[in-house]
Amino acid sequence: MTATTDSVSRLQMANAIRALAMDGVEAANSGHPGMPMGMADVATTLFCDYLKFDPADPRWADRDRFVLSAGHGSMLIYALLHLTGYARPTIEDISRFRRLHSPCAGHPENFELAGIEATTGPLGSGLATAVGMAIAERHLNANYGDDLVDHRTWVIAGDGCLMEGVNHEAVGLAGHLKLGRLIVLWDDNRITIDGAVDLSSSEDVVARYDASGWHTVRCDGHDEASIKAALDEAIADDRPSLVACRTIIGKGAPNKQGTSATHGAALGAAEVAAARETLGWTSEPFVIPADIAAAWAEAGRRGAATNADWQARAGAAAKGADFVARMAGEFEATGWLKPYVDALIAEPKTVATRKASEMALEAITAAIPATLGGSADLTGSNNTRTKSTPPLTAAHYGGRYLHYGIREFGMGLAMNGMALHGGIVPYGGTFLVFADYCRAAIRLSALQNAQVVYVLTHDSIGLGEDGPTHQPIEHMMSLRVIPNLDVYRPADVIETAECWALALERRDGPAVIALTRQNLPQLRLEASENLSAKGAYRLKAAEGDRKVVLIATGSEVEIAVAAAKALEEAGVGADVVSMPNWRHFDAQPADYKRNLLPADMLKVSIEAGTTMGWERYVGLDGLRFGIDRFGASAPAKDLYEYFGLTAATIAPQILSALGK
Amino acid sequence: MTATTDSVSRLQMANAIRALAMDGVEAANSGHPGMPMGMADVATTLFCDYLKFDPADPRWADRDRFVLSAGHGSMLIYALLHLTGYARPTIEDISRFRRLHSPCAGHPENFELAGIEATTGPLGSGLATAVGMAIAERHLNANYGDDLVDHRTWVIAGDGCLMEGVNHEAVGLAGHLKLGRLIVLWDDNRITIDGAVDLSSSEDVVARYDASGWHTVRCDGHDEASIKAALDEAIADDRPSLVACRTIIGKGAPNKQGTSATHGAALGAAEVAAARETLGWTSEPFVIPADIAAAWAEAGRRGAATNADWQARAGAAAKGADFVARMAGEFEATGWLKPYVDALIAEPKTVATRKASEMALEAITAAIPATLGGSADLTGSNNTRTKSTPPLTAAHYGGRYLHYGIREFGMGLAMNGMALHGGIVPYGGTFLVFADYCRAAIRLSALQNAQVVYVLTHDSIGLGEDGPTHQPIEHMMSLRVIPNLDVYRPADVIETAECWALALERRDGPAVIALTRQNLPQLRLEASENLSAKGAYRLKAAEGDRKVVLIATGSEVEIAVAAAKALEEAGVGADVVSMPNWRHFDAQPADYKRNLLPADMLKVSIEAGTTMGWERYVGLDGLRFGIDRFGASAPAKDLYEYFGLTAATIAPQILSALGK
Repeated sequence: MTATTDSVSRLQMANAIRALAMDGVEAANSGHPGMPMGMADVATTLFCDYLKFDPADPRWADRDRFVLSAGHGSMLIYALLHLTGYARPTIEDISRFRRLHSPCAGHPENFELAGIEATTGPLGSGLATAVGMAIAERHLNANYGDDLVDHRTWVIAGDGCLMEGVNHEAVGLAGHLKLGRLIVLWDDNRITIDGAVDLSSSEDVVARYDASGWHTVRCDGHDEASIKAALDEAIADDRPSLVACRTIIGKGAPNKQGTSATHGAALGAAEVAAARETLGWTSEPFVIPADIAAAWAEAGRRGAATNADWQARAGAAAKGADFVARMAGEFEATGWLKPYVDALIAEPKTVATRKASEMALEAITAAIPATLGGSADLTGSNNTRTKSTPPLTAAHYGGRYLHYGIREFGMGLAMNGMALHGGIVPYGGTFLVFADYCRAAIRLSALQNAQVVYVLTHDSIGLGEDGPTHQPIEHMMSLRVIPNLDVYRPADVIETAECWALALERRDGPAVIALTRQNLPQLRLEASENLSAKGAYRLKAAEGDRKVVLIATGSEVEIAVAAAKALEEAGVGADVVSMPNWRHFDAQPADYKRNLLPADMLKVSIEAGTTMGWERYVGLDGLRFGIDRFGASAPAKDLYEYFGLTAATIAPQILSALGK
Repeated sequence: MTATTDSVSRLQMANAIRALAMDGVEAANSGHPGMPMGMADVATTLFCDYLKFDPADPRWADRDRFVLSAGHGSMLIYALLHLTGYARPTIEDISRFRRLHSPCAGHPENFELAGIEATTGPLGSGLATAVGMAIAERHLNANYGDDLVDHRTWVIAGDGCLMEGVNHEAVGLAGHLKLGRLIVLWDDNRITIDGAVDLSSSEDVVARYDASGWHTVRCDGHDEASIKAALDEAIADDRPSLVACRTIIGKGAPNKQGTSATHGAALGAAEVAAARETLGWTSEPFVIPADIAAAWAEAGRRGAATNADWQARAGAAAKGADFVARMAGEFEATGWLKPYVDALIAEPKTVATRKASEMALEAITAAIPATLGGSADLTGSNNTRTKSTPPLTAAHYGGRYLHYGIREFGMGLAMNGMALHGGIVPYGGTFLVFADYCRAAIRLSALQNAQVVYVLTHDSIGLGEDGPTHQPIEHMMSLRVIPNLDVYRPADVIETAECWALALERRDGPAVIALTRQNLPQLRLEASENLSAKGAYRLKAAEGDRKVVLIATGSEVEIAVAAAKALEEAGVGADVVSMPNWRHFDAQPADYKRNLLPADMLKVSIEAGTTMGWERYVGLDGLRFGIDRFGASAPAKDLYEYFGLTAATIAPQILSALGK
């Protein structure tokens, strides 16, 4: 910052960020002071002159979104939220940075503080999430108009964010969709953890963004006029913008600035003292001089009038109430279900569950305007497009279907961004095996309590000829272990609808719905409540003396039913339990669980994937049928036979285990 | 291809590929004819005039590597291998494309056919794997000279490969390392599965590669002269090259070419008939006219003399035998272990296992020149660099340490490429939680039987303040379910060395070694065989009447030992079993397993991660201590207390379960 009369104040304001960053990290003896100190001037300009926000109303629907993609620099956002007047974090919160129960966690967590739009830390993820927010803004703008929806999405990203592969996907998507209200401020400090960026990269980042349909501009990240000129230019351009902010990491720490030593560790008492000297910062740790605090508070009040105007407009607008409700996530999630299921009971259908999902989606997307679909270039395979969802394009933001391209990870993060923005319930498809490509996005959906639905088709060797690279084996189990994630594997057309209803009903978390490529018969032929809601239920009760309970999911429920038939014919009573969702079943009362899976009964699991994990339900004495190696390339029927997943193979082994 | 006298033959040769692709897909009624038909001319030129290979000796160490990154176009490589004279696939193999036990799987599998350098299909992965091969070539060239190592790496990539995020990481790494012997032939057909590329991308791909330090050139992918001019230019340039080959997908199928209809389904009898008409191809399905077959066979014999020359040079060269042995993976893997362990028995060490890994690596990298380390920008945290491993840079390919940059997925695939190339045993580090970023690479290591070691540090809430985004919870379990992957979690400095020895000893598969950030005491104080080799072993036998077996891994073994002490003091005999590797334990004889984990004994698992899965060893009646939610930001000690993972919390619960 230059030292003109006006900017002295801004410099001091920026130094307040620097001081808090140093103090917070020092008190924790852990954290990342370099980024907040380096980007303090840019952030000050952004929050004082550009960002539309109102700390008194953090959930204001038309606020600008700000995402700190370089999440390790969390002290930057904590300082900004505190200084501009958010109720939290308090200075006490900040002084307990990185301690148990402080909302000022090591990395920003959206569930800890109202001013945090997205959980960040895994590099590149914040930027790609912001793309989803920017899509949401344009989509809602197309539906509700400028009066109600007219905001920007701002990102601070570091070199790490720009080196991660997912940034390529995010940048490609944003450029293609011409998301002109997305502005990425790149902390171009030329330093990574290992040392200088040129240890590992020789890329011309700006040229790459140019090649992807972005507007690009450079500025001196320590010069207010230069920053403003760049931001003004970015705002004026109708493409998404990359603002390359040339900065000095750890700016203000005289002996360490400009080096990776400031990146990820406390500066130490001596260097903090030297920095205070350099910055002319004389107040005690965690104390902001009154005049500087007042200047920040004033900056924080800047948006109040704009918010009030907006509230008045929203109150008066024809679609105002609808928009507010939609942003609050208020919609009827399951009204479509009963008539849909009734029709299937009247006229049963044998279809692949991916097709069953499309059928359900026809009803869902017609009933729930907030749903917005897509696929990572597998639309015809994932069956994710419906009559209600025309493509969302740069020319038609009102569309409800995104051709995400071959960008699974970028799709997952964009969906997180839409869900976090509010007003949209995104769902998107790829093959189940490629959950591996977007696994970090799925985890972030779960961590952020974001309602995102992953439509993952081709969910077993049942996909057939594409072979081991495309056949999920370990994926169901590897997804079940992610906390807070609902993993569904429906067995027929009815269960598919039930699982969709449950995924839509749950507003505070994500779901995976695993679906078959191959046809499955309708197993549920009588009207009932949503049986999938209990996670597992008795699909067929033993006819004879019950000796065994067969537990299966998805396409293997049909096999379990056939095996049970063979067992009954051999005089062995067999229950069949369909278990579309482990998490729901685990949440049932103990009585229900005991009744379904009695302790003193042979239990058998059948799932065309890893058997590790099924001990949870069948115990150490049960039988587990599945596949504990990679798959193979062949028609599905041949594979099921080859891997021994047929009633003819399974039933005799059960009889043998029973001593028959 | 133009129709000059000379090129007619080449066109006919290319049409042989087209015919086989159509026939193979038609017979399977499944597959992807579009890409092989579109790239037939480029591939013909490459195999007839550029690629250095010898079908009679597929493992020739100095052959060019060819990677079909667009793996769905597998019929292209099957046709090429067959036509040029590899022993397999036979025409019978090809006619059984995508059937059980045919080596002509839906996607190319390196374990099925000697001429397949890498398993491909997951998009982008082949390209990023090829970067590793190209690194291996330059590294070995630096060590063994031009006489022994002097080959290129060729890639055919599709739009999908170039849209996936990992291609950004691969391209950035290749450009930075100036891998001039890497040439990527981009099948620029402007079609993806969903339709035209411009449905989802507006990127100037060539400009992006330019920005990343690549040489770029365009050609008409159906004009031999144009292709040759481009390849000549690419070879002449000392940067990695992208050759944009403008092609027509499904070229030759008159009614469907140029559309996504040719991408992923059989053309159908009528269109095949029309294509045969268009191509002037009159022979029966799977029959190649003798003159065309002869031309291809001649092209296949092109490299025999070059190979013979090379063999003579290798036989005569001072380092020839060493190189051949190294390429064959012959090295003493564990000689370093005993003296290393003896020193620790003499003088025990309390260190973090990541530090223990560094100590072991000092011995390993000094003893085994084939080891090549690296980290995704976490060198100081992963402790992966040693005195024997100076950086590998564009100026010094002989170095043995790669600063991969913030590119976890790219690192994993590059390591696969090095391992598949041969002569290198790569290991690379990131945080365990970011296994999610490179999970698809880890799966491909396992599927391809590639010896790659993933050094994954910060393996639990024990990393402390960085919080939930950085704390693995589900990761150990989610990695254990990947087939063919060895997942290690050592408990102390000795086990860490043992796990490293096992990972190095296993030549046909990958390993993950999960390591702590925090210090751990040395628990093994007596000399012994490699106890980790059994996967689990009794670290401490009950002193009193044995009532319980505590099973733990990694940092929680220390807690188990402390809990056992508390139990013994309460009069309850407790074994402590350390279980660094489930897979090895599962492979032990039943007697060993029963002895260690008796059926009629309370069993308790302690691991700072998901408890789902531990039923496998503790049964339904056992206790499982762990964490089934996301972590939190706080110092490690506070977190262990908060999550109840201390001896003081655990021991009373065990006593209670025992009715005491």
